[in-house]
Amino acid sequence: MADLPPGRRPGLDPDECRRRFGASEHAYLATVGPDGAPHLVPVVFDLTDDRITVAVDHKPKRTTALQRLRNIAADPRVTLLADHWSTDWQELWWVRADGEATVVDSGREHEAAVRRLQRRYAQYVTTPPRGPVILTVVHRWTGWEARS
Amino acid sequence: MADLPPGRRPGLDPDECRRRFGASEHAYLATVGPDGAPHLVPVVFDLTDDRITVAVDHKPKRTTALQRLRNIAADPRVTLLADHWSTDWQELWWVRADGEATVVDSGREHEAAVRRLQRRYAQYVTTPPRGPVILTVVHRWTGWEARS
Repeated sequence: MADLPPGRRPGLDPDECRRRFGASEHAYLATVGPDGAPHLVPVVFDLTDDRITVAVDHKPKRTTALQRLRNIAADPRVTLLADHWSTDWQELWWVRADGEATVVDSGREHEAAVRRLQRRYAQYVTTPPRGPVILTVVHRWTGWEARS
Repeated sequence: MADLPPGRRPGLDPDECRRRFGASEHAYLATVGPDGAPHLVPVVFDLTDDRITVAVDHKPKRTTALQRLRNIAADPRVTLLADHWSTDWQELWWVRADGEATVVDSGREHEAAVRRLQRRYAQYVTTPPRGPVILTVVHRWTGWEARS
């Protein structure tokens, strides 16, 4: 569905990628484990200035640290994807952000990250995320749409 | 959004994971590159007997082999995720399938895979996928839902 011969591949330019990704309500975060296996979760996020913020809703205990946090500690390379699904495949598009992530547990950077998420999600105003935030600096945007 | 403290984590059992994943119209495929970086694309698929079939719609030339095929050739470990998004976070759920993938270019196994996809997607009846298929044997199902 998302593949066309290279000559027919109408890539989206980085600004259009940013616009579509930033307007998406949720995305998918892929990380790689210390054993080299991929890991994947849906996330809500904020995109500001090529930095993607994702929260962990609770404080994981050391012994139960979430896989995605362990993975980022071992290898900061992450990929996030936002897409539009439709049964009409002419309407499909996706945008992928490749970047490097850091985990921030507390402090002013954490507070600012929570505020960015609260501006986008009313749920986070009522119940602020108490866990670490994942800050990803995007170094490559890739986008595709079926409609050329 | 998709995280709860372990004690409150209402996991879905493998049969429920299979049911929800199999009923989803599309999913996300994460692979890992030879350089260890994660890669992520949306896919349409068939799930039959813990085997997930994904097609590449065209025949990639050797020099333009798709990243996901190069990745699987280097490391067969893949993760696929299907989810339900809603602005009401109480409605959220996701199911993840970890497995090992092989790429099949032609022959009876390829033909059978295309037929499975055609049963699910009318678009593939009109325009059969001409490229390789990715067959993933699932060895672990993980599922989560907000509503406990």
